Amino acid sequence: MLAREDHDALLRIVGPAGLLLEPADRLPYETAARYGVGSAAAVVRPVDTAQVSAVLRHCVRRRLQFTPQSGNTGLVLGSIPDTSGTQIVISLDRLRTTPHVNGADRTVRVAAGVRLSALNAALEPHNLFLPIDVSSDPMIGGMVATNTGGARFLRYGDMRRHVLALEVVLPDEAGTVLQLSNGLRKDNAHLDLRQLFIGSCGAFGIITSATLEVHPRPQRSAVALLVPRDEDAVLDLLNAFEVRAGEYLTAFEGMSEAAMRHAFAHVRTLRNPFLDGLPPYAILVELSSSAAQRSGEPTLDQILENVVTELAERQAAPLSDVRFGPPERFWALRHSLSEGLRAAGPVLGFDLSFRRSEVMLFRRVAIAQLATIFPEYEVCDFGHIGDGGVHFNLMQRAPAHPNAARVKALRDHLLDLAIRDFGASFSGEHGIGRANQEAYDHYTPASIQSYSAAIAAVFARMPAAAVRFGPQRSVGESDDD
Amino acid sequence: MLAREDHDALLRIVGPAGLLLEPADRLPYETAARYGVGSAAAVVRPVDTAQVSAVLRHCVRRRLQFTPQSGNTGLVLGSIPDTSGTQIVISLDRLRTTPHVNGADRTVRVAAGVRLSALNAALEPHNLFLPIDVSSDPMIGGMVATNTGGARFLRYGDMRRHVLALEVVLPDEAGTVLQLSNGLRKDNAHLDLRQLFIGSCGAFGIITSATLEVHPRPQRSAVALLVPRDEDAVLDLLNAFEVRAGEYLTAFEGMSEAAMRHAFAHVRTLRNPFLDGLPPYAILVELSSSAAQRSGEPTLDQILENVVTELAERQAAPLSDVRFGPPERFWALRHSLSEGLRAAGPVLGFDLSFRRSEVMLFRRVAIAQLATIFPEYEVCDFGHIGDGGVHFNLMQRAPAHPNAARVKALRDHLLDLAIRDFGASFSGEHGIGRANQEAYDHYTPASIQSYSAAIAAVFARMPAAAVRFGPQRSVGESDDD
Repeated sequence: MLAREDHDALLRIVGPAGLLLEPADRLPYETAARYGVGSAAAVVRPVDTAQVSAVLRHCVRRRLQFTPQSGNTGLVLGSIPDTSGTQIVISLDRLRTTPHVNGADRTVRVAAGVRLSALNAALEPHNLFLPIDVSSDPMIGGMVATNTGGARFLRYGDMRRHVLALEVVLPDEAGTVLQLSNGLRKDNAHLDLRQLFIGSCGAFGIITSATLEVHPRPQRSAVALLVPRDEDAVLDLLNAFEVRAGEYLTAFEGMSEAAMRHAFAHVRTLRNPFLDGLPPYAILVELSSSAAQRSGEPTLDQILENVVTELAERQAAPLSDVRFGPPERFWALRHSLSEGLRAAGPVLGFDLSFRRSEVMLFRRVAIAQLATIFPEYEVCDFGHIGDGGVHFNLMQRAPAHPNAARVKALRDHLLDLAIRDFGASFSGEHGIGRANQEAYDHYTPASIQSYSAAIAAVFARMPAAAVRFGPQRSVGESDDD
Repeated sequence: MLAREDHDALLRIVGPAGLLLEPADRLPYETAARYGVGSAAAVVRPVDTAQVSAVLRHCVRRRLQFTPQSGNTGLVLGSIPDTSGTQIVISLDRLRTTPHVNGADRTVRVAAGVRLSALNAALEPHNLFLPIDVSSDPMIGGMVATNTGGARFLRYGDMRRHVLALEVVLPDEAGTVLQLSNGLRKDNAHLDLRQLFIGSCGAFGIITSATLEVHPRPQRSAVALLVPRDEDAVLDLLNAFEVRAGEYLTAFEGMSEAAMRHAFAHVRTLRNPFLDGLPPYAILVELSSSAAQRSGEPTLDQILENVVTELAERQAAPLSDVRFGPPERFWALRHSLSEGLRAAGPVLGFDLSFRRSEVMLFRRVAIAQLATIFPEYEVCDFGHIGDGGVHFNLMQRAPAHPNAARVKALRDHLLDLAIRDFGASFSGEHGIGRANQEAYDHYTPASIQSYSAAIAAVFARMPAAAVRFGPQRSVGESDDD
């Protein structure tokens, strides 16, 4: 599908090892992490920023549509091409220069194609880590582009909080390379353009490297699984832990019975820590510290037990059960929830985010409504309850061919409830991919859509009318669907 | 200076109590916190968002230049009018609705004209506070607009990290009001337009209210004044405290002998904690916790003493002295440094920010160069050394009429050294006011200047060529100086 002229030009830029044309070579880059397969005209794999710039320059001048791809671990079709066979995937997986660590600064300069696990391996000898915790192993470029949050957001925040500098390549006819900021922690001397490239999913330009603030590695942690008395007790527990455990609190993650059940059924290495079957809901709470244990000081396990004991002795105790155990074992459960669901059957996933005082209320209302209107679906949710985030996953109780109209009705019902009635976001941390372009078009205020497109046009140096915001649309040029 | 038509229109919008025309009434709004007095055509004081919108609409349609003003505590002439007598000050000091606190969410919705002290008073009954620590008492609107950092940035970060939602009024012909986000902690469903209004000093629009994430109040703290062996030891101390004190570390602030001397000389309530005169440099280190002391647990004072003892026992100990004492007393010294300088004489101030591993090296180089080239100046610096920030203040040793050419030569020399040789920022946390417009024009990369102006034009709905970025310039319309 690639015109001779484009083939030859791209080959000159990236060489034969950087241009994948054969279907078998392209397939991993066309296949999404969960569901979905696209079809690309070619996969281009530049090795450095200069090649990224040359590729973008060519694509923009020739008006070729392209999709930047980093670790391709996303769940919203943000990094694979559509099925037209005309788009070019620009993979950043060869941008893998060894991370440059500055221990005194607590910073690291890292190329877009380095995986989170590889970055943390490079940081470990310096007693540092990037504290973004997700169940997959994404690349840094994509993490910046989607503003990854994850399970320790409560203490450490998202990628936005860690980015000190960025190098980006703009989708303009020059393939302009911008160096944004200088690795400083405080800089208010001009507009902070970095912020526009964080979380905008590549719509304004491709991130080729980042300087990140990183943190001292935790030296110790303690984890428990809390079973709340009921939904109302969850917020009580969170507020109590924030006050009593103070700065030690690093995670407060909710897991539904159904999500845990599928994990135990399909991930054989897990062991169920609950004695009487599974509770309807459980919370993984973690305390951790980057300072070593001091002699005479209570351990984190003791502090955790003390807080639990205080809560259990309250009138109307918010806890009905608690399990203590090795942190790795409980985290293995938490990180297996996605895999368990995937193994159990097709998942209809929603990455919702609420004001945190309302997330459990939404859950109750939504589960009750679905039981009546869409009883064939089971709710298998889990999420970052301490931050108001919930991965509200649905699965058909009996395997059946999905009915597209009914799936759409369910999506519309649930998103209306979450967004209209609760002021939620339809993408807490997954970003905007093709999978939620429709939600974007429908729920995002027109003013925000139009300012976003106008800003995309600024970076593309194109007339505003020619640009739309969203993956595979605003990059390079718009399409008209 | 106000045309009849404008006078009548503004009077209709804000009423007689909201329109200040008499010189004596205008003066507080024309006078900067440190140095500088401007002259306004009028001071307009809207009471709510609708009035702000109507005022902006009028100003834009009539092409009147205006200056948004919040607490007017800034040090870079960002909130007072120029001396032309033609600009309109839009003061936000009547936007003071009682803050709306949500304790379970740990959030507060607060109007732009509420002072930091008033916000914290409203948060105190909920055991919450906004952990931005500065020596002045700014209003929230200005704190968002300048992205205030301050002395506890090391633990808590800047205003950007705390903004969950914003209401802004755009300088377009409609006086468009935007509600940006919904008080969610995680939201990646569309471009995060909030980020453009944080730290851009009102150039894109006026902030009328914000929803902020706030934190549990510290229950206890311990503070020491560390005297480092020499400049190189400062970074060692910082890294050691980050590892040994872990999440308890909340501040690491440097103070020069000269800055402390002026504070002790002019602020009579202070007492000098050092036994043998003043050391050449001291560091205020703070540990704090939002969790109450547990029985059997070492106190923060004990932890602080332990860390100090460990450091003192090292070969080549990085400490030459240490003073323990009540936190309030040491913080009173830290917070009196500005006042001491102001009382001592005219200050030539620089708000510089470095990669934190280089801030002490810059200090050594700069002090040595100034001693040779500008010996009539004394360096009275202090700053947020843990974050690489330094308020590099200079004072003439003997009172003398300042020589404008020599002051300019000194400014140029110091900024060239900081920015060209060290990659520093000329405004770590003060924002861009008229006082550093020249530095902005000179040092900010042309690409960033031009993208910023183009984005300002997007929000003003004006052609890009008509807009420049920077206070009093891009808002409404450009001038041609």
